[in-house]
Amino acid sequence: MKNRHINLKSLSELQVGEVFETCGYTLTQADITTFAFSFDPQPFHIDEVAAQQSIFGGIIASGFHTIAICFRLFIQSGIFARSSLGGTGLDEVRWYAPVRSGDTLSAEVEVVKVIPSKSKEDRGVAILQYRGYNQRRELVVSFYGNHYLLR
Amino acid sequence: MKNRHINLKSLSELQVGEVFETCGYTLTQADITTFAFSFDPQPFHIDEVAAQQSIFGGIIASGFHTIAICFRLFIQSGIFARSSLGGTGLDEVRWYAPVRSGDTLSAEVEVVKVIPSKSKEDRGVAILQYRGYNQRRELVVSFYGNHYLLR
Repeated sequence: MKNRHINLKSLSELQVGEVFETCGYTLTQADITTFAFSFDPQPFHIDEVAAQQSIFGGIIASGFHTIAICFRLFIQSGIFARSSLGGTGLDEVRWYAPVRSGDTLSAEVEVVKVIPSKSKEDRGVAILQYRGYNQRRELVVSFYGNHYLLR
Repeated sequence: MKNRHINLKSLSELQVGEVFETCGYTLTQADITTFAFSFDPQPFHIDEVAAQQSIFGGIIASGFHTIAICFRLFIQSGIFARSSLGGTGLDEVRWYAPVRSGDTLSAEVEVVKVIPSKSKEDRGVAILQYRGYNQRRELVVSFYGNHYLLR
Protein backbone atom coordinates (compact mmCIF):
# COMPACT_ATOMS: atom_id res chain seq x y z
CA MET A 1 0.00 0.00 0.00
CA LYS A 2 1.41 3.33 -0.99
CA ASN A 3 2.04 5.99 1.61
CA ARG A 4 0.25 8.96 0.23
CA HIS A 5 1.20 11.11 3.20
CA ILE A 6 4.72 12.25 3.80
CA ASN A 7 4.21 12.34 7.56
CA LEU A 8 2.30 9.10 8.05
CA LYS A 9 2.89 7.35 11.39
CA SER A 10 1.96 3.96 12.73
CA LEU A 11 2.00 3.04 16.43
CA SER A 12 5.55 1.71 16.37
CA GLU A 13 6.84 4.89 14.79
CA LEU A 14 5.58 7.18 17.56
CA GLN A 15 8.07 8.47 20.11
CA VAL A 16 6.92 9.45 23.57
CA GLY A 17 7.48 13.20 23.90
CA GLU A 18 7.14 13.80 20.15
CA VAL A 19 4.97 16.85 19.44
CA PHE A 20 2.96 17.50 16.28
CA GLU A 21 1.89 21.04 15.47
CA THR A 22 -1.27 21.68 13.51
CA CYS A 23 -2.16 24.58 11.27
CA GLY A 24 -4.66 27.12 12.56
CA TYR A 25 -8.36 27.77 12.13
CA THR A 26 -10.02 31.16 12.54
CA LEU A 27 -13.50 30.87 14.05
CA THR A 28 -16.32 33.03 12.78
CA GLN A 29 -19.43 34.04 14.68
CA ALA A 30 -21.44 31.85 12.29
CA ASP A 31 -19.27 28.82 13.07
CA ILE A 32 -19.73 29.34 16.77
CA THR A 33 -23.49 29.92 16.80
CA THR A 34 -24.25 27.24 14.18
CA PHE A 35 -22.38 24.57 16.11
CA ALA A 36 -23.85 25.66 19.43
CA PHE A 37 -27.39 25.90 18.10
CA SER A 38 -27.12 22.21 17.20
CA PHE A 39 -25.16 20.90 20.15
CA ASP A 40 -24.85 23.39 23.00
CA PRO A 41 -27.69 25.92 22.78
CA GLN A 42 -26.91 27.95 25.87
CA PRO A 43 -27.44 31.74 25.70
CA PHE A 44 -23.74 32.63 25.98
CA HIS A 45 -23.04 30.52 22.85
CA ILE A 46 -25.93 31.63 20.62
CA ASP A 47 -27.51 34.89 21.80
CA GLU A 48 -25.35 38.03 21.54
CA VAL A 49 -27.65 40.08 23.77
CA ALA A 50 -27.76 37.49 26.55
CA ALA A 51 -24.05 36.74 26.11
CA GLN A 52 -23.10 40.38 26.66
CA GLN A 53 -24.90 40.28 29.99
CA SER A 54 -23.27 36.95 30.95
CA ILE A 55 -19.98 36.49 32.81
CA PHE A 56 -18.31 36.11 29.38
CA GLY A 57 -19.33 39.57 28.09
CA GLY A 58 -20.11 38.21 24.62
CA ILE A 59 -20.59 35.03 22.65
CA ILE A 60 -18.01 32.30 23.22
CA ALA A 61 -17.54 28.99 21.44
CA SER A 62 -18.90 25.79 22.96
CA GLY A 63 -16.19 23.69 24.54
CA PHE A 64 -17.44 20.72 22.52
CA HIS A 65 -16.69 22.83 19.44
CA THR A 66 -13.16 23.74 20.48
CA ILE A 67 -12.15 20.14 21.24
CA ALA A 68 -13.63 19.02 17.92
CA ILE A 69 -11.67 21.71 16.05
CA CYS A 70 -8.40 20.68 17.71
CA PHE A 71 -9.12 17.06 16.81
CA ARG A 72 -9.97 17.95 13.20
CA LEU A 73 -6.78 19.99 12.82
CA PHE A 74 -4.75 17.00 13.94
CA ILE A 75 -6.66 14.43 11.87
CA GLN A 76 -6.33 16.52 8.73
CA SER A 77 -2.55 16.44 9.14
CA GLY A 78 -2.90 12.87 7.88
CA ILE A 79 -0.44 11.48 10.40
CA PHE A 80 -2.73 8.57 11.32
CA ALA A 81 -4.40 8.32 7.91
CA ARG A 82 -3.40 4.67 7.37
CA SER A 83 -3.03 3.50 10.96
CA SER A 84 -6.12 4.78 12.81
CA LEU A 85 -8.67 2.20 13.97
CA GLY A 86 -10.69 4.73 15.96
CA GLY A 87 -10.62 6.02 19.49
CA THR A 88 -11.71 4.63 22.81
CA GLY A 89 -12.06 7.82 24.80
CA LEU A 90 -10.89 11.19 26.05
CA ASP A 91 -9.64 12.20 29.48
CA GLU A 92 -9.22 15.43 31.41
CA VAL A 93 -10.88 17.74 28.93
CA ARG A 94 -10.26 21.24 30.34
CA TRP A 95 -11.41 24.61 29.07
CA TYR A 96 -9.16 27.37 30.36
CA ALA A 97 -10.20 30.51 28.53
CA PRO A 98 -13.05 31.67 26.28
CA VAL A 99 -12.71 31.29 22.50
CA ARG A 100 -14.47 33.99 20.49
CA SER A 101 -15.27 34.90 16.93
CA GLY A 102 -12.07 36.01 15.20
CA ASP A 103 -9.83 33.86 17.39
CA THR A 104 -7.44 31.51 15.60
CA LEU A 105 -7.09 28.10 17.19
CA SER A 106 -4.18 25.76 16.62
CA ALA A 107 -3.05 22.68 18.48
CA GLU A 108 0.03 20.94 19.72
CA VAL A 109 -0.39 17.20 20.02
CA GLU A 110 2.11 15.33 22.18
CA VAL A 111 2.66 11.59 22.34
CA VAL A 112 2.28 10.74 26.03
CA LYS A 113 2.13 6.94 26.03
CA VAL A 114 2.36 4.07 23.54
CA ILE A 115 0.76 0.80 24.65
CA PRO A 116 1.11 -2.20 22.31
CA SER A 117 -1.84 -4.59 22.57
CA LYS A 118 -1.12 -7.81 24.46
CA SER A 119 -3.71 -9.83 22.57
CA LYS A 120 -3.35 -8.40 19.05
CA GLU A 121 0.18 -8.09 17.71
CA ASP A 122 -0.64 -5.70 14.92
CA ARG A 123 -2.13 -2.89 16.98
CA GLY A 124 -2.16 -0.88 20.20
CA VAL A 125 -3.17 2.37 21.85
CA ALA A 126 -1.44 5.74 21.72
CA ILE A 127 -2.36 8.36 24.30
CA LEU A 128 -1.91 11.87 22.97
CA GLN A 129 -2.27 15.17 24.77
CA TYR A 130 -4.01 17.82 22.70
CA ARG A 131 -3.28 21.44 23.66
CA GLY A 132 -5.27 24.14 21.90
CA TYR A 133 -3.91 27.70 21.75
CA ASN A 134 -5.31 30.99 20.53
CA GLN A 135 -3.40 33.53 18.42
CA ARG A 136 -1.88 35.04 21.59
CA ARG A 137 -0.44 31.61 22.48
CA GLU A 138 -2.79 31.36 25.45
CA LEU A 139 -3.73 27.78 26.25
CA VAL A 140 -7.52 27.65 25.85
CA VAL A 141 -8.23 23.90 25.97
CA SER A 142 -6.46 20.60 26.56
CA PHE A 143 -7.40 16.95 26.63
CA TYR A 144 -5.97 13.46 26.34
CA GLY A 145 -7.15 11.28 23.46
CA ASN A 146 -6.79 7.50 23.23
CA HIS A 147 -6.08 6.42 19.66
CA TYR A 148 -6.36 2.80 18.60
CA LEU A 149 -3.67 2.34 15.94
CA LEU A 150 -2.08 -0.27 13.73
CA ARG A 151 1.57 -0.89 14.49
CA MET B 1 -37.14 36.63 37.03
CA LYS B 2 -39.82 34.28 35.83
CA ASN B 3 -39.17 30.58 35.62
CA ARG B 4 -40.16 29.72 32.11
CA HIS B 5 -39.21 26.09 32.54
CA ILE B 6 -41.17 23.73 34.68
CA ASN B 7 -38.10 21.63 35.50
CA LEU B 8 -35.57 24.39 36.14
CA LYS B 9 -32.85 23.52 38.67
CA SER B 10 -30.17 25.56 40.38
CA LEU B 11 -27.14 24.08 42.15
CA SER B 12 -28.81 23.93 45.55
CA GLU B 13 -31.80 22.07 44.15
CA LEU B 14 -29.73 19.16 42.78
CA GLN B 15 -29.70 15.90 44.69
CA VAL B 16 -26.77 13.51 44.38
CA GLY B 17 -28.11 10.37 42.72
CA GLU B 18 -30.89 12.22 40.90
CA VAL B 19 -31.17 11.09 37.28
CA PHE B 20 -32.57 13.11 34.38
CA GLU B 21 -33.73 11.30 31.25
CA THR B 22 -33.57 13.00 27.89
CA CYS B 23 -35.68 12.46 24.82
CA GLY B 24 -34.11 10.64 21.87
CA TYR B 25 -32.50 11.63 18.60
CA THR B 26 -32.34 9.42 15.51
CA LEU B 27 -29.11 9.89 13.59
CA THR B 28 -29.11 9.96 9.80
CA GLN B 29 -26.22 9.12 7.51
CA ALA B 30 -26.13 12.82 6.50
CA ASP B 31 -25.80 13.89 10.14
CA ILE B 32 -22.95 11.50 10.70
CA THR B 33 -20.94 12.28 7.57
CA THR B 34 -21.56 16.05 7.73
CA PHE B 35 -20.34 16.29 11.30
CA ALA B 36 -17.36 14.02 10.64
CA PHE B 37 -16.39 15.78 7.42
CA SER B 38 -16.00 18.96 9.51
CA PHE B 39 -14.51 17.58 12.69
CA ASP B 40 -13.37 13.95 12.37
CA PRO B 41 -12.74 13.14 8.71
CA GLN B 42 -11.55 9.57 9.11
CA PRO B 43 -12.61 7.03 6.43
CA PHE B 44 -14.85 5.00 8.76
CA HIS B 45 -16.89 8.16 9.51
CA ILE B 46 -17.24 9.59 5.99
CA ASP B 47 -16.52 7.00 3.28
CA GLU B 48 -19.00 4.12 2.97
CA VAL B 49 -16.68 2.05 0.79
CA ALA B 50 -13.70 2.39 3.11
CA ALA B 51 -15.93 1.99 6.18
CA GLN B 52 -17.25 -1.34 4.92
CA GLN B 53 -13.70 -2.62 4.72
CA SER B 54 -12.85 -1.27 8.18
CA ILE B 55 -13.21 -3.07 11.50
CA PHE B 56 -16.61 -1.34 11.86
CA GLY B 57 -18.11 -2.82 8.68
CA GLY B 58 -19.80 0.46 7.75
CA ILE B 59 -19.95 4.13 8.63
CA ILE B 60 -20.11 4.97 12.33
CA ALA B 61 -20.62 8.31 14.04
CA SER B 62 -17.67 10.25 15.39
CA GLY B 63 -17.36 9.99 19.16
CA PHE B 64 -17.17 13.79 19.30
CA HIS B 65 -20.58 13.78 17.63
CA THR B 66 -22.16 11.32 20.06
CA ILE B 67 -20.99 13.22 23.16
CA ALA B 68 -22.24 16.48 21.64
CA ILE B 69 -25.65 14.92 20.94
CA CYS B 70 -25.97 13.65 24.51
CA PHE B 71 -25.05 17.10 25.80
CA ARG B 72 -27.53 18.81 23.48
CA LEU B 73 -30.34 16.47 24.54
CA PHE B 74 -29.69 17.36 28.16
CA ILE B 75 -29.28 21.12 27.56
CA GLN B 76 -32.52 21.28 25.58
CA SER B 77 -34.36 19.86 28.58
CA GLY B 78 -33.92 23.37 30.00
CA ILE B 79 -33.00 22.13 33.46
CA PHE B 80 -30.02 24.50 33.73
CA ALA B 81 -31.53 27.23 31.55
CA ARG B 82 -31.31 29.91 34.25
CA SER B 83 -28.46 28.56 36.38
CA SER B 84 -25.70 27.56 33.92
CA LEU B 85 -22.53 29.63 33.90
CA GLY B 86 -20.71 27.26 31.54
CA GLY B 87 -18.53 24.21 32.00
CA THR B 88 -14.96 23.68 33.06
CA GLY B 89 -14.33 20.25 31.57
CA LEU B 90 -15.18 16.64 30.88
CA ASP B 91 -13.68 13.48 32.33
CA GLU B 92 -13.55 9.82 31.37
CA VAL B 93 -15.20 10.11 27.98
CA ARG B 94 -15.65 6.48 26.85
CA TRP B 95 -17.06 5.09 23.62
CA TYR B 96 -18.31 1.55 24.11
CA ALA B 97 -20.11 0.63 20.90
CA PRO B 98 -20.52 2.03 17.39
CA VAL B 99 -23.41 4.41 16.64
CA ARG B 100 -24.76 4.14 13.11
CA SER B 101 -27.25 5.82 10.83
CA GLY B 102 -30.77 4.94 12.01
CA ASP B 103 -29.72 4.53 15.63
CA THR B 104 -31.66 6.53 18.22
CA LEU B 105 -29.56 8.02 20.99
CA SER B 106 -30.91 9.12 24.34
CA ALA B 107 -29.16 9.97 27.58
CA GLU B 108 -29.43 9.52 31.30
CA VAL B 109 -27.74 12.25 33.27
CA GLU B 110 -26.96 11.56 36.90
CA VAL B 111 -25.93 14.06 39.56
CA VAL B 112 -22.67 12.67 40.96
CA LYS B 113 -21.34 15.53 43.05
CA VAL B 114 -22.39 19.04 44.10
CA ILE B 115 -19.55 21.35 45.18
CA PRO B 116 -20.49 24.84 46.43
CA SER B 117 -17.82 27.42 45.70
CA LYS B 118 -15.75 28.50 48.72
CA SER B 119 -15.00 31.93 47.35
CA LYS B 120 -18.31 32.80 45.66
CA GLU B 121 -21.45 32.21 47.69
CA ASP B 122 -23.86 32.32 44.79
CA ARG B 123 -22.38 29.51 42.70
CA GLY B 124 -20.64 26.15 42.54
CA VAL B 125 -19.88 23.10 40.42
CA ALA B 126 -22.09 20.11 39.72
CA ILE B 127 -20.50 16.97 38.33
CA LEU B 128 -22.91 14.99 36.18
CA GLN B 129 -22.44 11.60 34.57
CA TYR B 130 -23.85 11.42 31.06
CA ARG B 131 -24.75 7.95 29.79
CA GLY B 132 -25.80 7.60 26.17
CA TYR B 133 -27.87 4.61 25.06
CA ASN B 134 -29.05 3.35 21.70
CA GLN B 135 -32.56 2.06 20.95
CA ARG B 136 -31.58 -1.41 22.22
CA ARG B 137 -30.63 0.14 25.59
CA GLU B 138 -26.98 -0.63 24.94
CA LEU B 139 -24.64 1.87 26.60
CA VAL B 140 -22.71 3.44 23.71
CA VAL B 141 -20.99 6.38 25.41
CA SER B 142 -20.46 7.89 28.85
CA PHE B 143 -18.67 10.88 30.30
CA TYR B 144 -18.56 13.17 33.32
CA GLY B 145 -19.31 16.85 32.78
CA ASN B 146 -18.46 19.68 35.16
CA HIS B 147 -21.17 22.34 35.20
CA TYR B 148 -20.59 25.74 36.75
CA LEU B 149 -24.00 26.74 38.18
CA LEU B 150 -25.71 29.44 40.15
CA ARG B 151 -27.08 28.27 43.49
